[in-house]
Amino acid sequence: MPIAVARTRSATMSGIAAKVGTLLVQSPHHKGIVSAISQLLAEHGATIVDADHHAEAGRFYQRLRFDASMLVAGGLETRLRELATRYGMTWRVTWGERPKRVAILASKQEHCLYDLLLRHRAGELPCEIAMVISNHPDAAPIAAHFGVRFHHLPVTPMTKARQEAEMVTLLDGVDLVVLARYMQILSPGLVRCFPSRIINIHHSFLPAFVGANPYRQAHERGVKVIGATSHFVTPELDQGPIIDQETIPCTHRDTVEDLIRKGRDLEKRVLAAAVRWFLDDRILVHANKTVVFD
Amino acid sequence: MPIAVARTRSATMSGIAAKVGTLLVQSPHHKGIVSAISQLLAEHGATIVDADHHAEAGRFYQRLRFDASMLVAGGLETRLRELATRYGMTWRVTWGERPKRVAILASKQEHCLYDLLLRHRAGELPCEIAMVISNHPDAAPIAAHFGVRFHHLPVTPMTKARQEAEMVTLLDGVDLVVLARYMQILSPGLVRCFPSRIINIHHSFLPAFVGANPYRQAHERGVKVIGATSHFVTPELDQGPIIDQETIPCTHRDTVEDLIRKGRDLEKRVLAAAVRWFLDDRILVHANKTVVFD
Amino acid sequence: MPIAVARTRSATMSGIAAKVGTLLVQSPHHKGIVSAISQLLAEHGATIVDADHHAEAGRFYQRLRFDASMLVAGGLETRLRELATRYGMTWRVTWGERPKRVAILASKQEHCLYDLLLRHRAGELPCEIAMVISNHPDAAPIAAHFGVRFHHLPVTPMTKARQEAEMVTLLDGVDLVVLARYMQILSPGLVRCFPSRIINIHHSFLPAFVGANPYRQAHERGVKVIGATSHFVTPELDQGPIIDQETIPCTHRDTVEDLIRKGRDLEKRVLAAAVRWFLDDRILVHANKTVVFD
Amino acid sequence: MPIAVARTRSATMSGIAAKVGTLLVQSPHHKGIVSAISQLLAEHGATIVDADHHAEAGRFYQRLRFDASMLVAGGLETRLRELATRYGMTWRVTWGERPKRVAILASKQEHCLYDLLLRHRAGELPCEIAMVISNHPDAAPIAAHFGVRFHHLPVTPMTKARQEAEMVTLLDGVDLVVLARYMQILSPGLVRCFPSRIINIHHSFLPAFVGANPYRQAHERGVKVIGATSHFVTPELDQGPIIDQETIPCTHRDTVEDLIRKGRDLEKRVLAAAVRWFLDDRILVHANKTVVFD
Repeated sequence: MPIAVARTRSATMSGIAAKVGTLLVQSPHHKGIVSAISQLLAEHGATIVDADHHAEAGRFYQRLRFDASMLVAGGLETRLRELATRYGMTWRVTWGERPKRVAILASKQEHCLYDLLLRHRAGELPCEIAMVISNHPDAAPIAAHFGVRFHHLPVTPMTKARQEAEMVTLLDGVDLVVLARYMQILSPGLVRCFPSRIINIHHSFLPAFVGANPYRQAHERGVKVIGATSHFVTPELDQGPIIDQETIPCTHRDTVEDLIRKGRDLEKRVLAAAVRWFLDDRILVHANKTVVFD
Repeated sequence: MPIAVARTRSATMSGIAAKVGTLLVQSPHHKGIVSAISQLLAEHGATIVDADHHAEAGRFYQRLRFDASMLVAGGLETRLRELATRYGMTWRVTWGERPKRVAILASKQEHCLYDLLLRHRAGELPCEIAMVISNHPDAAPIAAHFGVRFHHLPVTPMTKARQEAEMVTLLDGVDLVVLARYMQILSPGLVRCFPSRIINIHHSFLPAFVGANPYRQAHERGVKVIGATSHFVTPELDQGPIIDQETIPCTHRDTVEDLIRKGRDLEKRVLAAAVRWFLDDRILVHANKTVVFD
Repeated sequence: MPIAVARTRSATMSGIAAKVGTLLVQSPHHKGIVSAISQLLAEHGATIVDADHHAEAGRFYQRLRFDASMLVAGGLETRLRELATRYGMTWRVTWGERPKRVAILASKQEHCLYDLLLRHRAGELPCEIAMVISNHPDAAPIAAHFGVRFHHLPVTPMTKARQEAEMVTLLDGVDLVVLARYMQILSPGLVRCFPSRIINIHHSFLPAFVGANPYRQAHERGVKVIGATSHFVTPELDQGPIIDQETIPCTHRDTVEDLIRKGRDLEKRVLAAAVRWFLDDRILVHANKTVVFD
Repeated sequence: MPIAVARTRSATMSGIAAKVGTLLVQSPHHKGIVSAISQLLAEHGATIVDADHHAEAGRFYQRLRFDASMLVAGGLETRLRELATRYGMTWRVTWGERPKRVAILASKQEHCLYDLLLRHRAGELPCEIAMVISNHPDAAPIAAHFGVRFHHLPVTPMTKARQEAEMVTLLDGVDLVVLARYMQILSPGLVRCFPSRIINIHHSFLPAFVGANPYRQAHERGVKVIGATSHFVTPELDQGPIIDQETIPCTHRDTVEDLIRKGRDLEKRVLAAAVRWFLDDRILVHANKTVVFD
């Protein structure tokens, strides 16, 4: 019997969120852009409740949250489109009227999967967990325990194209794909379907120890700190924009198994942080780097 | 006028140390070696006051500190040599009868140099700072302030061989060479004169960002953590056995200059820790890795 | 349907453990004690594979692990009892022939409970989870999911004495009681039944913020770091010997709810570390302090 | 001979800073205040380059940096005063036309003093170190080394009132007083002369271990983490608003002396961070808590 999900809470969150808008903006740095945007919001009855800016290398990034309860109907998005054209700006506004839909991809390792489902249950991740997909059947009872739909999509080199096609069908309407230690490399074609919308956890401090068995690589090099990295997936393996990283000390006493055990704690935290920031519209991507307004 | 150095303290430390021996051992892992060594010490009147073991990949590492005040004169080292032959063991015993002699090599950056001299003054580094060598004259007043001998050895590609020859002469009788942000690459010939006796600080989390300008490399990659690494110098640049590593979080707000500033704190701590462990005979090296009995 | 527990792994661990003995010792510091013990082990055919010492304030602590596969039958424990009498030493030897039995007490908060059960499943905690006890029914499906026996023991001020009596009956034969955010204060009588065998997690950096609502207290004081503490339970609330502590930075932006969320991660890690060290016989207690040979 | 101070750098910093204004504001939370302030700046030709907001418990905090190179002469401050009256707002604007003047108070311990002087030399602390005051003569050669004026103001219980009176005279025109391990308790009268302008370093994780010998207290309690706290000084000892805190793990092996050594590193970092934030106008104080816009 699945555990009862805290639906009341989600409803309340969605209720509150419906009155707050979040605007994410990036553009080449023009002098007037800050005041143009804040003026535009003021004209439409929106009151800014939180603002973050960043400027770097001739580029401007902004996150604004505004009270939209008195918002003048229509018009705001049209005017933002005009600004976007004028300034070469890209933007996204969310109204929190519905929680984002998240799909989790997993394989045999279960710690990140459990962690995300538990944090969701605890109210840390305000989203809908739309489904769990795995190339192994092991996660089925876990998904069932949390009342989440489960899809078993086994894969072999021969069937990979077909498996990914099925996956794309399932992922229709999903806002975020989380690779929770999913041990298959996604094809570039699939990755391009979800630009800056697939988050992976790599179990090393990137750019050190790219590829397979990073804890073994770390042990062989004799490092005194290990790390984990959450990043957006791009077609180049382990090269995407980094969202979060954490490290933990280790010593000569740590075997590869100890590093794996210590690393699990890092992986969970670093992946969950990236997902939470994504859900809260706190991440902007440019030139293979992220701006995270945390 | 140089600041008065706390000589009394050093004298006292040396005084205490004179009664304690430290034995560092490594060998292929034989069953009887632990008891053979402890028996040998017991037979010579030495009481073990601290012991650390480590076994890994068929190899055995040990550090023993023993009260040598009742030590039976002579004999112990002869018997250790016999054990070494029998077990293929390498060993080193120190009696603390004299503080180790340390040379610091620096260039224009002064933070690690100051840090080591200040920690020495505070009694954190029980050694004799035998000299400061720099390829620039800037550190002269710093050395003078701490009452330490200073040698200015400028270097150009043309004069490098001669400069290193002078250096080797100066370094005669030195137990440890510390590269405190010394910005010249030592020639393999010089490095081989001091096996596992030159400690460098590299301003990145190795093996990430080998070579020049690691903070700039880190900024370009968009990492969310930066690090520093102290390691023994080997002929391969930045590839030597790692002694200590630390990291610190960073964000998109950190410019390269911010990373450099944050990194200075890491570099100082990580280098000082390595030096302290070396002085206290806590580091063993095998197969490009360290065992640090801290 | 409960998830299949990895029984093979436990069996193997127990298999290996059966050949290794662990001896924990503490006593007033006598000169000959180290060699007396190691000689005693040698005489009985035991080879030391790992050793840790600590001496402080005239007291001596030691943990020895030894290969017991060639152990001469009988005798060792008799001889240890003799040593104990001679030196005023207390000691405990474990043979790993059976995993320790652990009871987890929980209330409504589930994060520490899940965390312990998941780590157990992942092989991080080599023990038998004998039961979960809660004063609320909520944890029943969680225990069921992991195939662990569950006891619901509701409690009111009126029924506390009886509830604790039932608990003591259930806990018969249990090696360790873990308070995984159990929100009832155990009576001194119950605590005295399990000296240095009840581990609690307190959600603050003790000795700061003793008692109720430590995150709220921390928020009111405006601290910039929060912490969590695992400790042995003694009759004095939150005053027992500290086993592990960790902290995490916070800022003015963190609400009490944010501190609670951040704190959950700390609590899980710090509690799990304490349990792991206990299971591995790494903790010694003296004078309200712990020696942890990690 | 004092080391040459990098005056060019300061000049440049001041040069750049002269064109940027920093506005710090706090007030009861009124709806229109954000747009009122940004409109006011826009009207006077100021372009916002960085903005931070915080709202908590019905109170609003803001830090704005703006390009003042096109600022319409006069008027802005008059209008800010009007806003302040209307909203019950307090504010402070700095133009960076002159570096802040800082006085460092020290006693015998020199690590924080050296650290601040070295960071100043490295360009980390954009200010003028106006003087070093100590109740002991030991710091005189340190101040001389860095070319900073030194005042020796010895103190006894009998002479305290007079010593503090002299100090107040010397501190005339100073923007910030830093207690760099100054081991005298300032009288409430002196403290009240510098509201939110005296920063102290306390060598514990407050509110734990208030008062004397916190490392000894920590050692006696058997904590597994130690900390340091920088805070504004108020008449209540160690009770002022906390600015920064950091911690570091410790174990049973750490003696009180080890804690003191480890703590020095913490103290230096935590004090320097507080000073840097103060110099950069990043700290707001309300109700014994700080908002730090870092």
